[in-house]
Amino acid sequence: MARYKLTIEFDGTPFAGWQVQAGQLTVQSRLGAAIMAFSGQTVTIHGAGRTDTGVHALGQVAHIDLDRDWPAETVRQALNFHLKPDPIAILAAKRVDDDFNARFSATMRYYRYRIVNRRAPLTFDRNRAWHVTADLDAGKMDSAARTLLGRHDFTTFRSIHCQAKSPVKTLEAISVTRNGEDIDIRLSARSFMHRQVRSIAGSLKCVGEGRWPVSAMAEILAARDRSACGPVAPASGLYLTQVDYPLILC
Amino acid sequence: MARYKLTIEFDGTPFAGWQVQAGQLTVQSRLGAAIMAFSGQTVTIHGAGRTDTGVHALGQVAHIDLDRDWPAETVRQALNFHLKPDPIAILAAKRVDDDFNARFSATMRYYRYRIVNRRAPLTFDRNRAWHVTADLDAGKMDSAARTLLGRHDFTTFRSIHCQAKSPVKTLEAISVTRNGEDIDIRLSARSFMHRQVRSIAGSLKCVGEGRWPVSAMAEILAARDRSACGPVAPASGLYLTQVDYPLILC
Repeated sequence: MARYKLTIEFDGTPFAGWQVQAGQLTVQSRLGAAIMAFSGQTVTIHGAGRTDTGVHALGQVAHIDLDRDWPAETVRQALNFHLKPDPIAILAAKRVDDDFNARFSATMRYYRYRIVNRRAPLTFDRNRAWHVTADLDAGKMDSAARTLLGRHDFTTFRSIHCQAKSPVKTLEAISVTRNGEDIDIRLSARSFMHRQVRSIAGSLKCVGEGRWPVSAMAEILAARDRSACGPVAPASGLYLTQVDYPLILC
Repeated sequence: MARYKLTIEFDGTPFAGWQVQAGQLTVQSRLGAAIMAFSGQTVTIHGAGRTDTGVHALGQVAHIDLDRDWPAETVRQALNFHLKPDPIAILAAKRVDDDFNARFSATMRYYRYRIVNRRAPLTFDRNRAWHVTADLDAGKMDSAARTLLGRHDFTTFRSIHCQAKSPVKTLEAISVTRNGEDIDIRLSARSFMHRQVRSIAGSLKCVGEGRWPVSAMAEILAARDRSACGPVAPASGLYLTQVDYPLILC
């Protein structure tokens, strides 16, 4: 048996999210079909994280076990061949030891939430960003975001469907930057809860448009109350950009 | 009569280019339909330049004449409303004097040609860049590009279907830069000939992959021979980014 670490990019628009669901086109199901076409095996694909319908990835990581010890570059090229024409690309494939686990070995996950802040409709960024027409103050959004840094009970920003055991998480980094009409929210943590990034992005938008003061962010966090959260931001703006692992494992 | 300058962004993928053609979906025909839906008028849309099938624009400029003197912002919003769901957006609309002409008043046109230089298939950039898998040396491409600067007979880089009176044009700026896997070729000139940018991009790719020496670019330019040109680069990588006008006119 040979274990492979796969780094995966996908445009989430046509997919019902990452995870296999009966009768739905998902990234995991398309990957499974490509692995079957290449190797003849039905394998379990262990992803670093699940993504919802319409959410994108620039660097999702998964591991798979194959019966035969193929060169990693052969696996990468064969999967990319069989994934056509779906908008999924294997950026890298690597042979790893059996103690590498894409989900449990991850030490840091990075997300980016993209807002395009302009009056005109989106063309190139349609389905790839949240289109907000009201003027947003990215400086205020950044100040509000920083109040979430560190270890907190994130119950306010957690979906009621979230299955995590504890709502206490440590947000290692968060920032909001503007470049012309593009506003980027970047976050990193060892792990996130379901809808956490989109819940934070939706609340930050309320601050950016001036409906909420900067201080509201700390208040709704302290409330530990899902109903205090702003409207959840749409899936189209969310990108899983990177997952880190201990160097010794990969 | 009121003349309006329109600044237009479009994803060229679904369109058979800019110009109206019977039985084809073009940007000009969709704009014409939106203007008709808004104003009830059938107008001529004068574009700064024609773009081929699949070519994109971040800042195409056109002018139109309307019977009624609408506020420019009303025109912009109404056209964007009627353009839905096509990937065309009116970024700006402005009332201009009757001596403004989108095509003939232009003093500079700017193009960008995008190459994504990586082995993995494209996902987000599909139809929006030229996917080149062979390693390209952007430094050599930049050196070769600079030999085209200035006033030259560009016959080598001109489509045989080009209708320009003279093949002598002045290339004001050209550069090739790399940012990770993205290679950008940026060019500006008062005017370009048909397929000129894609012919230059295709020839620069031959230099970048080492098939041609840097010096080849000056040689094929001097040849003034269409058959000396490299393969024409695909439409998907080309963006009309900006058109400049004398300040006094707009």
